[in-house]
Parts: sequence; C-alpha cells; structure tokens
Amino acid sequence: MLNVGLLGAGRIAGVHATAISSNPESTLVAVSDINAAAAEKIATGYGAQMRDTDAILNDPAIDAVLIATSTDTHSDLIERATAAGKSVLCEKPVDLSLARAQACQKVVAANGKPVMIGFNRRFDPSFSALKAALDAGEIGKPELLSITSFDPAPPPVAYVKVSGGLFRDMMIHDFDMANFLMNAAPVSVSAVGTSIVDPEIGAAGDVDTAVVTLTYADGRIAVIKNSRRAVYGYDQRVELLGSEGLLQAQNMLENTVVKSTTAGVTGARPTFFFLERYMPAYTAEWAAFVDAVNGGSAMPVTLDDGVAALAMAEAATRSVKSGAPVRLDSLGV
Amino acid sequence: MLNVGLLGAGRIAGVHATAISSNPESTLVAVSDINAAAAEKIATGYGAQMRDTDAILNDPAIDAVLIATSTDTHSDLIERATAAGKSVLCEKPVDLSLARAQACQKVVAANGKPVMIGFNRRFDPSFSALKAALDAGEIGKPELLSITSFDPAPPPVAYVKVSGGLFRDMMIHDFDMANFLMNAAPVSVSAVGTSIVDPEIGAAGDVDTAVVTLTYADGRIAVIKNSRRAVYGYDQRVELLGSEGLLQAQNMLENTVVKSTTAGVTGARPTFFFLERYMPAYTAEWAAFVDAVNGGSAMPVTLDDGVAALAMAEAATRSVKSGAPVRLDSLGV
Amino acid sequence: MLNVGLLGAGRIAGVHATAISSNPESTLVAVSDINAAAAEKIATGYGAQMRDTDAILNDPAIDAVLIATSTDTHSDLIERATAAGKSVLCEKPVDLSLARAQACQKVVAANGKPVMIGFNRRFDPSFSALKAALDAGEIGKPELLSITSFDPAPPPVAYVKVSGGLFRDMMIHDFDMANFLMNAAPVSVSAVGTSIVDPEIGAAGDVDTAVVTLTYADGRIAVIKNSRRAVYGYDQRVELLGSEGLLQAQNMLENTVVKSTTAGVTGARPTFFFLERYMPAYTAEWAAFVDAVNGGSAMPVTLDDGVAALAMAEAATRSVKSGAPVRLDSLGV
Amino acid sequence: MLNVGLLGAGRIAGVHATAISSNPESTLVAVSDINAAAAEKIATGYGAQMRDTDAILNDPAIDAVLIATSTDTHSDLIERATAAGKSVLCEKPVDLSLARAQACQKVVAANGKPVMIGFNRRFDPSFSALKAALDAGEIGKPELLSITSFDPAPPPVAYVKVSGGLFRDMMIHDFDMANFLMNAAPVSVSAVGTSIVDPEIGAAGDVDTAVVTLTYADGRIAVIKNSRRAVYGYDQRVELLGSEGLLQAQNMLENTVVKSTTAGVTGARPTFFFLERYMPAYTAEWAAFVDAVNGGSAMPVTLDDGVAALAMAEAATRSVKSGAPVRLDSLGV
Repeated sequence: MLNVGLLGAGRIAGVHATAISSNPESTLVAVSDINAAAAEKIATGYGAQMRDTDAILNDPAIDAVLIATSTDTHSDLIERATAAGKSVLCEKPVDLSLARAQACQKVVAANGKPVMIGFNRRFDPSFSALKAALDAGEIGKPELLSITSFDPAPPPVAYVKVSGGLFRDMMIHDFDMANFLMNAAPVSVSAVGTSIVDPEIGAAGDVDTAVVTLTYADGRIAVIKNSRRAVYGYDQRVELLGSEGLLQAQNMLENTVVKSTTAGVTGARPTFFFLERYMPAYTAEWAAFVDAVNGGSAMPVTLDDGVAALAMAEAATRSVKSGAPVRLDSLGV
Repeated sequence: MLNVGLLGAGRIAGVHATAISSNPESTLVAVSDINAAAAEKIATGYGAQMRDTDAILNDPAIDAVLIATSTDTHSDLIERATAAGKSVLCEKPVDLSLARAQACQKVVAANGKPVMIGFNRRFDPSFSALKAALDAGEIGKPELLSITSFDPAPPPVAYVKVSGGLFRDMMIHDFDMANFLMNAAPVSVSAVGTSIVDPEIGAAGDVDTAVVTLTYADGRIAVIKNSRRAVYGYDQRVELLGSEGLLQAQNMLENTVVKSTTAGVTGARPTFFFLERYMPAYTAEWAAFVDAVNGGSAMPVTLDDGVAALAMAEAATRSVKSGAPVRLDSLGV
Repeated sequence: MLNVGLLGAGRIAGVHATAISSNPESTLVAVSDINAAAAEKIATGYGAQMRDTDAILNDPAIDAVLIATSTDTHSDLIERATAAGKSVLCEKPVDLSLARAQACQKVVAANGKPVMIGFNRRFDPSFSALKAALDAGEIGKPELLSITSFDPAPPPVAYVKVSGGLFRDMMIHDFDMANFLMNAAPVSVSAVGTSIVDPEIGAAGDVDTAVVTLTYADGRIAVIKNSRRAVYGYDQRVELLGSEGLLQAQNMLENTVVKSTTAGVTGARPTFFFLERYMPAYTAEWAAFVDAVNGGSAMPVTLDDGVAALAMAEAATRSVKSGAPVRLDSLGV
Repeated sequence: MLNVGLLGAGRIAGVHATAISSNPESTLVAVSDINAAAAEKIATGYGAQMRDTDAILNDPAIDAVLIATSTDTHSDLIERATAAGKSVLCEKPVDLSLARAQACQKVVAANGKPVMIGFNRRFDPSFSALKAALDAGEIGKPELLSITSFDPAPPPVAYVKVSGGLFRDMMIHDFDMANFLMNAAPVSVSAVGTSIVDPEIGAAGDVDTAVVTLTYADGRIAVIKNSRRAVYGYDQRVELLGSEGLLQAQNMLENTVVKSTTAGVTGARPTFFFLERYMPAYTAEWAAFVDAVNGGSAMPVTLDDGVAALAMAEAATRSVKSGAPVRLDSLGV
C-alpha cells in the first residue's frame, strides 16, 4: 500500500484525490494547501488529514507526494520532495522557465528519487491504443503526425498573463504527445499564432490560435493546431500517416445517440472539457505511477519528458515572435 | 452491339434510357408508350425512334426489350416479347397476381428466351459488396438478417389502391433482397402492419408500416421493416449477423460534410429517394443484362426470382390480415 | 446517508458494492451470501461487515437492501425486506414465474415500502439521452421501434436450463426497454426463435436467436432481435422511427482509434460485455434509487415494470412454441 | 448548344469528353492531339472529328475549347484560343512559370474572352456543400483552415522532374481550395518538406511530404498537408474552425459496407484516386462553364485564380528551400 500526500487542493487535486482513493494499492493520507478550507474539504471527503506541506514532506510514513499546486511552485516542491525521499508525481509543466526546470533536473538526479510528470493524455484509452498500434507496426514507419487540440472556450485574460502563454500551458500537452508518438525530439520548431478569438489575449502578449510545425532529423514532420475556442466541445484528435496506413484517434462523444431529421443526421457533441474527456486517463496515470513505484521500474513519463516539452514551448514562443523556425539545439537541449 | 427497344416512357423508363445509351455495348433504337409525347421526348433525347409496341416487337433488328410500362401489362409483354424472340429486362413486379405470374413462367419457359426482372438493388455497390463479403465467408454462416427500407414520404392514396399494396409494390424489393442474401426461400412469412402514417392508406385497405419475419428451413431468421415515411430521406439498410461477425450496408449520404456546433455534430441526410440512391445500381443492372445476353450466360435475376418475391408478398398480405404466419408451400410455391 | 445491506456476493453484487461505496450519500454496511467467503471478500474490500441475511433484514440501522442473489430467491427476499421496512433495489427478473411475481406485487403493496427493479439499461447514458430526445418531441410521434441486443457469446447450457430461457433472462431487458420507450404495454407478442448458434441450447428446450414483434393498441410496432452470439462484442442498439425523424443509440466502442490501411478503415470493437458497457448505468441506477428513497419520490423503475416485462417474456415463450401471436390480456395482465 | 473542341486526348481529356457529351447543352465537335491515334479514339467514341489544333481554333463554328494538353502548352493555347474568339476551360496549372502565367493574364485581358481554370475540386459535392455552409454563416467567422490531401501512391520520378514539383502539380489544388474557402490570398507562405516516401524524389530535387502554413492579413491561419502516399486510398479532407463551429468534408468511401468481427469494425476504403473521387466534380465543373458561357456571366474559377495558386506554389517552393516564410508580395503578386 502506497501512502500518499497530496500537495494542492484545487480542482485538479480533487481529480487526483479520487484516483488515489479508488486505487486499491494506494491510500490518501494527507492534503495541504495555502487555502486550508480547500485542503480540509478534500481531506474529509477521502478520510485523510489536512496538514501543512512541511509536515507531509517530513512524515516518514508517506511514500509519495502528488504535486498539484500552482506552476510556480513545481520545481521547488519536486526538489524538496525528492530530497525528503518521496516518489513524486507532479502536474505539468515542470516550470515556466526552461533554465529553472533544467536546474531541477540536476537536483532530482542527485536526490535519486523517481519523478513522473503528469502528461495524462498518454494514458487516454484512445491515444494509448493508437500508440500501441503504432508500436506494433500496424501502419509501418510513421511519417507525418497531426495533432488537433482545441479548448471549448478561452480562459480569462488574467490566467493567460500568468500561465506562460498558450505554448506553455496548453500546447505543452501536444508537444509531449508528439514526443510520445514520434519517439524522438524534433530538430526545429516553427510557429505561427494569432489572437483571432480574443484580441485581449493578443493585447496581453499571447496568442489564442496557433499552428506549430516540427521537423525531425530523419525527415518526419509533425504539425500541431491549437485554438482556445471550439464551441462544440473539447476537440482532441491525433492522426499519424505512416508508410502502410493512417492511425486516427477521434473525439469521445457525450453519448452514441444519432438523430436523423430533415435537418440532417446529428450525433452528440464531444465531451465538454478535460475533466470529462480525461477522467479515465487520470485514473490510468495514477495506476501507472503506483505500478512504477511499487515495481521499482522506470517512470512512464519522466522529468526529462517534462523538460523536453517545455523546451519546445520555449522554442515555439520564440518562433511566433521572430517569424522564423527555431532549432531546439539553439536552446541548449 | 445490342439493339434495344424500350416499352414505356415514364420516369423509370427515362432512367433506363440513360443507362442503355451510356453503355458502349447497347444502343437505344426505339421507344413506345401509350403517351406518344412522352415516347417522342425520350426518343429525341437519345437519338432513337418513337414507334408503337407492335412495331418494336416485330422488328427483327431489335435484340432486346426493356419493359417499363405499368405493372398490369408486364406479364403480357414478357410473353409477347419472348415469343417474338427478344431478350427481356422487365421492371418489377412480374404481376400483381401470383397465379398470372406463374402462368407467365410457363409461357416464357416454352418461348426459350431469357428474361431478367429488374431488382435493381442487387446491383447497388453497397449491397453487392455486402453479398460478396458474405459469399467470401467473411462473417461465417449467416444467421439473422435485418432489412430496413423506409421511403421518404407516402405515395398518394390513389397509387396505393392500384399498386397491389405495400407488400407488392415496396417490400417486394426487400423480399428479393432476402432471397438474394439468404440464398434460399423462407418457409414461413409472418407480418404485422399498421396505417399509422396515413389513416387514409388504412381506409384504402393497405398498411404503411410493416414488420415481416421470415423463417428458413435451416433455422435462420430474417426480419424486414418498411415504413412509407422517413422524413430524413430514403433509408435503405441491411445487416446480417453471422457466426463470425456482422455485415451492415448503411445509407448513402448526400455528401460527406460534418458540422460541429453547440447543437451537436451533424452530417448530411441520406440521399433523397430511389433515383438518387440507386442510379449507379440501374447502370450496373443494365450492364449485367447486356453481359448476360451477349455472353449467353444465365440472367443474374430471373423470372423465377420475380415470382418468388411475389409469392412472399402474397403470403405477407395474407398474414397481416389473418394475424398468423403463412407457409409459402400453402401458396403452391 | 443511506445505510445499505447487500444480499448476494456474486459478480453483479460486486458491481453494486462499488456503486454503493462511491456514492457520497450511501454507505455499504453489510453483505450476506450463502458463500461466506464471497461475502467476506466484498465486505473487506468496502469496509463493511459480513452477516447473514436475517441479521441484515432485522437491523433497524439498515435503511435499504440491494438484492443480487439468484433469481429464485428474489420474490421471497423482496417480500421479507419490505416487511422488515427496508427500501429495496432488486436485480431483474422479479421471478421466473409470472404468478409468483404477481403475488409478490400484492405483498409489496401491503407492506408499503418502495421497490425498484434493476433494469439498468434505462440509466445508460445513450438510452437515457434517446428517451429524453423522444420525450422532448424531437422525432414527433414514435411509430416503429427496433431493439438489437446480442451477447458476445452463449452461456453454458447448464445456465440456460435454470435461467428461464432467453426470453426471461436476456430479452427481458429489451421488453423493459420497449416499455420504457413506448410508454405503454403491447397488446400482442409474436415470437420466432431458433437454436442456430448452439444446438445443445435447442436440446435444452431454449432458443439462442429470436425475433419478437410487439403490436400496440394505437398501431405502433416494435421488433426485438436477440442473439446469444456476436463475436465482435456486446451489440446493444436501439432505433426508433417517428413521424418527424429517427433516433438511434449506437454501440459504445472500446476506444476512438481508426486505422486506415489497404484492408479498409477499421475502428475499435464494441465494449466487450455488460460490465464494460453498463458500468456507468449501474452507477446512475444506484444514484436514482438513493435519490428516490431520500426524496420520498416514486421509484424510477417499479415492481410493476418488472412484472410487465416478465409477462412479455411469458408471452414470447408461449408464442415461439405455438407459432402464433399471444395477446397479453390472455395472461391476465 | 455549345460546340466544343477538345485539345488533348490523354486520360483527363477522356474524362472531359464524357462530361461534354453527357451535358445536354454542349456537343463535342472535334479533338486534337499530337498522338493522332489517341485523338481518333476519343473522337470515334463520342461522335466527334479528329482534327489538328489549328483547324479547331480556326473553325468559327466552335464556340469553346477545353485545353487538356501538357502543362507547358497551356499558356500558349489559352492565348491562341482567346485570340481566336473561343471561350476556354484550361486544366491547371496555368503554367509552371509564374512570370509566363502573368504574361498570359495580360494577353487574355486584351483578347476579352472568358477563361476558366480547371480547379475541379471546387465542384466536388462535399467541398461545395462545405463552402455553402460557410457562406451561410453556419460556423460564424472562419479562423483556422486545415487541408489534408494525400495521393494513394507516388508518381514516377520522371514525372516529378517535369511536373514543377509537388507544390505546382499537387498542392496547387489545395492552394486554390484555401483561396476558395478563405476568400482571400494569404500574406505569407511557410513550407517544410521531406522526401521520406521516396528518396529518389528528393534526389530529383523535390519533396514528397510537405506541410505549408498560410497566414492572412486578418489573423486567420491555414495549414495544408500533402503526402504522395496514402496506401489506403485518396485522402482528401478539409476542415475549417470558425467562431461558432467546425466544418469538415470527409472522404468518400467506396461503399457503405461495415464489417464487425473479432478484428474490429471495418468500413470500406476511400475511393482510390482522383478519377473515382472527382468524377461528379468534373461533370459539375463543365456544367458551370457551360452555364457561364451561355449566360454571359463571370467564370466561377478565373485565370486570376490560376495565377494566384501558382504564386503560392512558387512561394512554397522557395520557402521549403530557404527554411523561412515567404511573403507573397515579394513575388510581385
């Protein structure tokens, strides 16, 4: 039984609390948050204790911590938790600063405890089935990857100002998906972006619609499309053309009802947003973490993966500004 | 080159005239109709002559006739044309009277010329692909067949009064489809029907919605559903469960556009009616007839097939009235 | 908080234990089973006690019992539990004997406690969305209902001998679905059946493939297709033709991956069987029961619904033997 | 009746000959080709005469010519035909040289006869329905366009050497589709390409896989993906995200059969290549030309459209070499 401390008590922390509690091999022991009431609520709901973060990190009975706090605390908490001997699952991104994340890598390597980064989409049943089919050679050699990732509605401009921008808070998932599926980092990153959905996002220095093209050393190409607004729901699709076929992971729909009328043939919308779409992925992600810790095996998503995606976000941010491709090796990665 | 006379100049005759003319191995020579203007119009449009039926049947230069006149003339014209030495493609049904159709069978057998009945759906690309997959053993042994066949809108009550009713004018296509796919005639026919779409159809002695269950000597079962009204378009689907899988032929849609909005995910409607859906089938049907005549091979759909479907329509008509299953052998077939 | 006793500790009882425990408004207090080890295992897994059935029924602290024992005990336990003042959710069918189920109805009416029958499919997200669209008038007046319900593989013959047969153990769900969607009981039931999947099922006096046609007083028609074997997975579909359109609830697939190769365009199979397909339905079913008990409102599926479906199963069993339709009023319902 | 001369007798000329002949308002009068046998064959098949090009251009009874010769002759023939007073439909591209095409524009303007360029995909039922839905405001304001266009198999390297390369012979259709749907020319063109399908294509100086990103003055973005090889068939899809929804035009499949087995749920492949997919588009394209000539209305696709797409191909060719975006205004367009 893995005893777990949860750092953070926001919405995503609640999702993780459910996953921890429903897993027969892990127990939620304690929750901390700067908002004590929020921590108390989760603790009560799952038979855990509300504590402060130090108390959690210093408790030798706690084997692992799940970090679901604000992004600016991730690197510090990863370092402190691993120093305290805990296994760590940390929400993405590792940090907004590539340099800080790289420093964290070094500390973690020294501390010698495993760290997993929460790229939950790798555990989505459809994306993982696509990856399995790819690895089984079902479409031969992959050549051209396309990732479509649209949110249902743009976030408040206030969020955009602190999130690190679209490439670091949103497309970072897609960068990791590209790395996961292409099994390699790209050589160059070329981005175009616009604030066509909400000009205030542009005024805040960010984009809300972007297309990023990645090129690989062996000639493969990937393209990622992001939009902050798809009014019909959360649009999360992947397609990969290979030498012997095409693999697509399509959207989950709310249900399977189809209505045919004089207006056409209408099915349900895609599931609304990430909580609806990715709940099974969060559960599977946690199970994979528990299995890796208990089995002493390698983390299925590593801190290196987190840094690699962050470097791509940094490159895309620079490319959209300069209007030219950015080589990843120019960022020291 | 097959020289062809066309008997009839209504809407379906026009479809056949196009198929005859566009086929490189057949030429439309002459057209007859009790409505001379209609015959003249088709003749002009396709470089043929308007003649009367006798002149067509007596012309030794005409190899084949296509009968697309009203149903009550089919048996007579089949007999006269084969007596005159013509190969014949006749629209369904052979006759409204099973006894008359059976008499026609005898005359045709004596005349020794090939007769094909126009069950065009056998030549639809999807239904013929389904049949090919079945024959290739792709779902093992067939066990349970379902046919859905809905018209977009009910016909005028005046038509219903002379058409022989839903089972003879509409479901007869589905009876033939069952015979085509099951490769056997059923043992018994059990029908329920209602005039829920248009009570005037009920007042005229017919039904507009019906479900017919067919049982086979070897234990297989088929079910056919008909409705005179599907406001979303022509609904023509088949599915067949076998020991190793399921085959479905789904509807043709008007186009492949899909629109996702807050209202859901909407595709195009099915093609509107039989002219839109089955135009490729009419072309392929004619080509199969030409090939059979030119090659001296067996007709792909025979007069016997026409009589078999008619017998099932007769049985269904009796069953819906008696409320009990009707054995086909009780009809002398 | 609703304190719950679980009677039975088999596979489906485990499903219910999960639903009870994960619902924030109910607590699993005790479990009983003739197999003490099975009861102990569930009790341990969910923090409950293993007790015998009498102890559960006599415990005034237990508000409700969920009956998931073998079918032959259902009526007795429903009567005893309601006599003991418990609210009851009982798995289907109420009984194999229509007369016994009707007697149970009278006892329950006298005991005055609410009883819900576990027709879980009403709570499936797709079927409930279809029902909501129907009730909202989205396809006008319903006219023709089709239910397809195929299991992935036939049960052991030993099961068939005690289950009451296909109509009582399998199609009973579809009878209830018809009642749910048509909002009325049919007038007559006409069934054909065959043991084409497994002749030993036929030797045991049952069928493994069946088509049942239902007619309604107002002219509507329903048709239900069952097969014990669909090798591609659990096939659970409904379609309903109305005066203004068609509603279909299609299968849930294992994932959304689509692979295009020279062999065609291939998607995932339907979810394997009822546990995979209907887990969300079991959770929603339990939530509906808790809401009804806590709110003092009518049960969403009643004992009367259970008896109505059982009567249809009885009628179908008679019809498949006699080869003639059976009127429900001939069964005294 | 429009009397038509056909210049060229290759495969695509045969497609056009069928469209001309089956259109009730046009007649194929004469065919020319440097390969006299090929011209003779088409002429015979459609009741036309084999002539040389001069004879066709000088015949005052010929109203229009359809140019389906090799690309290097297009500009000259457009100029000569319009000088001879003919209306012209010319296959794409106008020329491989942007400068030559621009010179042709000037000559045509002086000659004053209408010229249509054969961007047949605008007349595809699905793409034209998507455009109609867009123009009807069904997804609000367009923001992000994606075009997927994969051929089933790469052409011979010999073809690539004379075709002008992927951007001029293949993606030029997609450039026109972008112009058609976005209703504006882009500001900049950014291309990446690789010869991952066939290294010999790379050795010949071309790419076989490419992604092109287009940016527009108002902030919109388009991305085009091309591959010379999709083993599953001709993959021709468009999707357009707008402020109020998403429009997608999906592939045409060979038929509607779906097979469910233990291997999954398999549908038919996309139609094989452009002749199968776009035959209805060629027919509609010709009808639109005839309507425009007869009605004296503007050509639905103009020579300017042809030059605009060619400029984008030129820009993409430069971008893929330089590794940087190319502004269209830098090309003098």
